[in-house]
Amino acid sequence: MKARQSLLILTLAACAGITLAETAVRNEPIQPLAPYVPADAAATAKAALGEKLYFDPRLSKSGAISCNTCHNLSMGGTDNLTSSIGDHWQRGPINAPTVLNSGMNLAQFWDGRAKDLQEQAGGPIANPKEMAFSHELAVRVLDSIPQYRDAFKGVYGKDTIDIQMVTDAIAAFEKTLVTPDSRFDLWLKGDDTALNDQELKGYQLFKGSGCVACHNGTAVGGNSFQKMGVVEAYKTDSPELGLEGVTKDEADRFKFKVPTLRNVELTYPYFHDGAAKTLEDAVAIMGRIQLGRQFTPDETADIVAFLKTLTGTQPDLKLPILPPSNNDTPRPEPFNAADSEPRPQNG
Amino acid sequence: MKARQSLLILTLAACAGITLAETAVRNEPIQPLAPYVPADAAATAKAALGEKLYFDPRLSKSGAISCNTCHNLSMGGTDNLTSSIGDHWQRGPINAPTVLNSGMNLAQFWDGRAKDLQEQAGGPIANPKEMAFSHELAVRVLDSIPQYRDAFKGVYGKDTIDIQMVTDAIAAFEKTLVTPDSRFDLWLKGDDTALNDQELKGYQLFKGSGCVACHNGTAVGGNSFQKMGVVEAYKTDSPELGLEGVTKDEADRFKFKVPTLRNVELTYPYFHDGAAKTLEDAVAIMGRIQLGRQFTPDETADIVAFLKTLTGTQPDLKLPILPPSNNDTPRPEPFNAADSEPRPQNG
Repeated sequence: MKARQSLLILTLAACAGITLAETAVRNEPIQPLAPYVPADAAATAKAALGEKLYFDPRLSKSGAISCNTCHNLSMGGTDNLTSSIGDHWQRGPINAPTVLNSGMNLAQFWDGRAKDLQEQAGGPIANPKEMAFSHELAVRVLDSIPQYRDAFKGVYGKDTIDIQMVTDAIAAFEKTLVTPDSRFDLWLKGDDTALNDQELKGYQLFKGSGCVACHNGTAVGGNSFQKMGVVEAYKTDSPELGLEGVTKDEADRFKFKVPTLRNVELTYPYFHDGAAKTLEDAVAIMGRIQLGRQFTPDETADIVAFLKTLTGTQPDLKLPILPPSNNDTPRPEPFNAADSEPRPQNG
Repeated sequence: MKARQSLLILTLAACAGITLAETAVRNEPIQPLAPYVPADAAATAKAALGEKLYFDPRLSKSGAISCNTCHNLSMGGTDNLTSSIGDHWQRGPINAPTVLNSGMNLAQFWDGRAKDLQEQAGGPIANPKEMAFSHELAVRVLDSIPQYRDAFKGVYGKDTIDIQMVTDAIAAFEKTLVTPDSRFDLWLKGDDTALNDQELKGYQLFKGSGCVACHNGTAVGGNSFQKMGVVEAYKTDSPELGLEGVTKDEADRFKFKVPTLRNVELTYPYFHDGAAKTLEDAVAIMGRIQLGRQFTPDETADIVAFLKTLTGTQPDLKLPILPPSNNDTPRPEPFNAADSEPRPQNG
């Protein structure tokens, strides 16, 4: 895999007219993203299966909600809503974090209650407020469809499908969702023209004022839990406790996983409660409650200009064509007796 | 365009190793689909803009429902639900017809109330039971996004966006959604090996028993309105009146647009009320109420085998990457005061 990556980087460098010396990494607290390169054909097949599952709304009770509904790959891997819409339009408890580059997170969910992407993927399927299905039913749907059975057999070598395979394949697909070649990465790799003066000034301020203490590493975040409201309490309507809900340790109250800032221009609104509608709001609030710092409008604008350079190349995907249900496939149940009856539409 | 089509057919024929003689059309009441070929670069640009709009949930009040939600191009251009889910999980009045090959329909909607795809496209956006937005707000959202403004200017040559441009671009994209090269089309074009004996027997029965009287032409339907329940009344819970709702003529009661049978294997469930869950059910009911004919299980199986040969090549699309909202973009309103407040999730 290392050799393949180097080959790819060489190829990309050649295509972009970049000499090898320019791919050298600056000594910064943020590192450039490497493009995803599958280990082998088996990895490619597993991710392709996971991609179909990611887009398949038949993993929900209603037949209408897929992973892509709330982590929409056309929209930065989020739904761009304050909180997501679940089965029967239930209001989700928290802002949907981006799936992009999420394989780099130290744990999954805002409170870190899933250790990895595979464990995460099973959550929403069975959550009655989200996809409202069960793992058993999801497997039964997939197992009824010969094209899925064949694909699972090809990847896992078994005649029966289980939920571990389903979540493993989804996680394998999600790990492909990295977004290299942001302008900031080009700059990190030595391209002095990639950033303008304001963006560079914004980055220096981002570093100098302490943002980078938490938003660092390859994902510019995602690698620690931090208290929301260090210097000043964060005011929110959200009842979420964060890590305390997992550890039951009061010291972890309001600790949340630091979100990645990659593609942050695309992943609005911000914070676990989705309360910050704009990057300007997010920067101002973070500065105040985390760093005790009142950024001037110019400073905020500079940091925002820098943050927008973190938008990378979005996943280059074909819209998957899903294998059809057949007479053996359990049918979705979008409505129940309590839902209103259909009425005629306007002529 | 004719010349380009011929060139493409020649190219395709060459690729598939088919000689030109084999592209000759059999003399049948169903004609093969020609692949979509854009007239020029302007047509390609318009369809590309329309594709983005088709996938953009910001054309809905909630920010969560796009054209693709109910006419999902991963699933035969439908949602595979009895009736669709609208804003706030409202139950739609009617089964969502496929968008695939819909440019060939004599009119749009089951009751034909829109004369063409452009007129259709405006309907769901402003329908309070569907996307629940308004044309004004949809335009305001798009107009706030520089990438959309540039794309509209490139296509329509104007600095301002209007709803006619929006629906024209969506319709232009939808017209590209044709599904050529079904096995039945290969047979029509002279490939004797494309169908097996059962499928051929099914087609002969489809013709001989009268199905083809309504399901004919290039789209195998879509070119007439017919009464649902000619020989025997159709029993349904649906209050839909069909064409009568448009013409106010009682003679048009229960007349619906004959649906295309192309890709019918993918477009379950069937009928305007979505009441037929399987192709076998649909064939049996149609035979009885439209033709006064009780198909044997073997006959039904033969017709179903034929119908499954109508699945064509599905659209080969890249998942579009949507331009982000910015500080000037009106934000979606997925929830209102009457919706439940968020509660903490399980730890």
